[in-house]
Amino acid sequence: MTPAPQKRYLLAPGPTPVPEEVLLAMAAPTIHHRTPQFEAMVGEVRDGLKQVWQTEQDVLVLASSGTGAMEASVVNTLSPGDVAIVVNAGKFGERWTKICRGYGIEVEEIEVEWGEAVDPAAVEAILQRRPEVRAVLVQASETSTTVLHPIEDLAALTRDRDTLLIVDGITSVGVVDMPMDRTGIDILVSGSQKAFMLPPGLAFVAFSEKAWKASESATLPKFYFDLARERASQQKNTTAYTPAINLMYGLRKALGFMLCEGLPELFARHDRLARATRAGARGLGLPLVAEKSPSPAATGVFLPDGVPGGDLQKYLRNAVGVEVAGGQDRFKGRILRLAHLGHVGPFDVVTGMAALEFGLSRFGVEAPWGRGVAAAEGFPPPATR
Amino acid sequence: MTPAPQKRYLLAPGPTPVPEEVLLAMAAPTIHHRTPQFEAMVGEVRDGLKQVWQTEQDVLVLASSGTGAMEASVVNTLSPGDVAIVVNAGKFGERWTKICRGYGIEVEEIEVEWGEAVDPAAVEAILQRRPEVRAVLVQASETSTTVLHPIEDLAALTRDRDTLLIVDGITSVGVVDMPMDRTGIDILVSGSQKAFMLPPGLAFVAFSEKAWKASESATLPKFYFDLARERASQQKNTTAYTPAINLMYGLRKALGFMLCEGLPELFARHDRLARATRAGARGLGLPLVAEKSPSPAATGVFLPDGVPGGDLQKYLRNAVGVEVAGGQDRFKGRILRLAHLGHVGPFDVVTGMAALEFGLSRFGVEAPWGRGVAAAEGFPPPATR
Repeated sequence: MTPAPQKRYLLAPGPTPVPEEVLLAMAAPTIHHRTPQFEAMVGEVRDGLKQVWQTEQDVLVLASSGTGAMEASVVNTLSPGDVAIVVNAGKFGERWTKICRGYGIEVEEIEVEWGEAVDPAAVEAILQRRPEVRAVLVQASETSTTVLHPIEDLAALTRDRDTLLIVDGITSVGVVDMPMDRTGIDILVSGSQKAFMLPPGLAFVAFSEKAWKASESATLPKFYFDLARERASQQKNTTAYTPAINLMYGLRKALGFMLCEGLPELFARHDRLARATRAGARGLGLPLVAEKSPSPAATGVFLPDGVPGGDLQKYLRNAVGVEVAGGQDRFKGRILRLAHLGHVGPFDVVTGMAALEFGLSRFGVEAPWGRGVAAAEGFPPPATR
Repeated sequence: MTPAPQKRYLLAPGPTPVPEEVLLAMAAPTIHHRTPQFEAMVGEVRDGLKQVWQTEQDVLVLASSGTGAMEASVVNTLSPGDVAIVVNAGKFGERWTKICRGYGIEVEEIEVEWGEAVDPAAVEAILQRRPEVRAVLVQASETSTTVLHPIEDLAALTRDRDTLLIVDGITSVGVVDMPMDRTGIDILVSGSQKAFMLPPGLAFVAFSEKAWKASESATLPKFYFDLARERASQQKNTTAYTPAINLMYGLRKALGFMLCEGLPELFARHDRLARATRAGARGLGLPLVAEKSPSPAATGVFLPDGVPGGDLQKYLRNAVGVEVAGGQDRFKGRILRLAHLGHVGPFDVVTGMAALEFGLSRFGVEAPWGRGVAAAEGFPPPATR
């Protein structure tokens, strides 16, 4: 006899919960990828991705984690010695810097207080001082601090310059309305284990005309992440190297779900759940990490003094089966992050709040019962649905 | 009403058939990767991979196709201007050349007649003439020609030199006995969609001490494929970037199957099935592409004059649901390749032979009935099983 598995709730900002329908779609027999059957599927997926990216460009699918697509963005558009501005407002901003420096790019780093969004004026000042800047690299949603950066304002700065706007949209594509073409984003990256309701293993990246043009003169070496080669293949509904076939089954299924919900409701739902979570946090008296410009993908909250974040996170994981994210680096032990992206609804927010209440009580906060849940419930699902 | 799906048979050299038990293992709910639960799984997988590689070294798991691990082998051990010998005996040999040249490595290419294995004397001649050669890159099994290269003989040449032996074992690890440490292989690469009975999306690579030492002075840029960083993480049973979590569930399951069968029987079974396939081809009067040194992973056969390979392949796919591989480049339309690696047994060989018989008959060969099947059946499974 074995016990039933613990009921588990994935409320971390990736991997996000995968619908059973998607898990089972991926359990279909593996077919060969050099076949009309697979090519038809790639065609369908390509079409769906363009709609989610809101672009006329190709959205390329890579078999890698999102970091692979971040690296691809750099190595396909820049050359050694190029200058790039990196907005470093957290762990993922840091990653842009590491990738760029690893490839010999000179980085003008804008260090932003953790929890704050970048001030576009800081970017503009460097662009004016150094017109040779080839790219501005930024997260749309900086997951380590749950901040949303002002991508539209940054695009306004790069649009008429010879500078690319390279956006890590790993936790924002499919979450917040960020139409690539209309906004003027040059490169927009994402990953499967976020709004796409899939396990990790696929990354996505789209280039604007301006980015493709830049790629023609970029001299950094690349092979697996050579996107010109990949584009030539994917435009024929195939891939340059062996694709992650069964994850593609899941992608087709999940894109169908997203497009059936429709982008307006997809974005509205994420916004509602984010507002509910923030309200719940306020109800519990927990200050938001990103008070001024919070991300609709995840909400970070500061814990009361004396509540050990690491232990709280472990308690939630082990005792009640709820997986939330803790803080990294300077936020280690001080914050918790609750995600609300992908296959999530109001009861996930309720669960997150109840879990916080269990956890806070466990670590000495007196009778927090229902305070977070009650405040979060002020954002119910629309009656018309 | 929809019809039942066509019964399909995957007899191409990758992707190979995935057992239903593995497909369903991958349909388990996605868990978070920064958890003791996931780390325990990584520990189990690491252990199993070492056994299959027959090495004391770490076998690193990457979220990418096999090509990613090939690139990782190059960028982690070589520097611009280094000299490398590439054995180019087919499409995958060509890929080594392209990767190396893309990264500014000077390639001494040994072009081998398609269908032949490399002559170690040709490698030795270059090594003697150019002692500065840093690496010899080769396939163990060159899938495009179904040839097996003499890896042991090559290892004898590199073992006492300051030269690495870098082996693409994508279709040979878990197929043919090639103990990494004992043979003296410095880098051994593989991929999930081959002997590992998984969908594509994972790549594997192990480095010898000598290769790790070389990596310390290698200056080629890398980030996603930085294996030193990856090793530091995987030695702690985690990964540097988000792993392909659900594929890891499948890997754990499939490794269990492989180790339960045991390496000796695993290799013996592949050998039996390869011999049976070759015998069947002879029974049908089809010359082998790799007569002298055939791979135990797949068997290429020349088609009779006048039989159009492309049309035959399409007929098999569409009319009878059997996926075999055709020929590439100079072999296009002239050969067919039947794989026998991974989750395969004698009835897959029988199916392949029967499919060939259907196909040859369809394209004008008179009454081939049973000739391939009968000859293949001379290699039955052992009675003791």
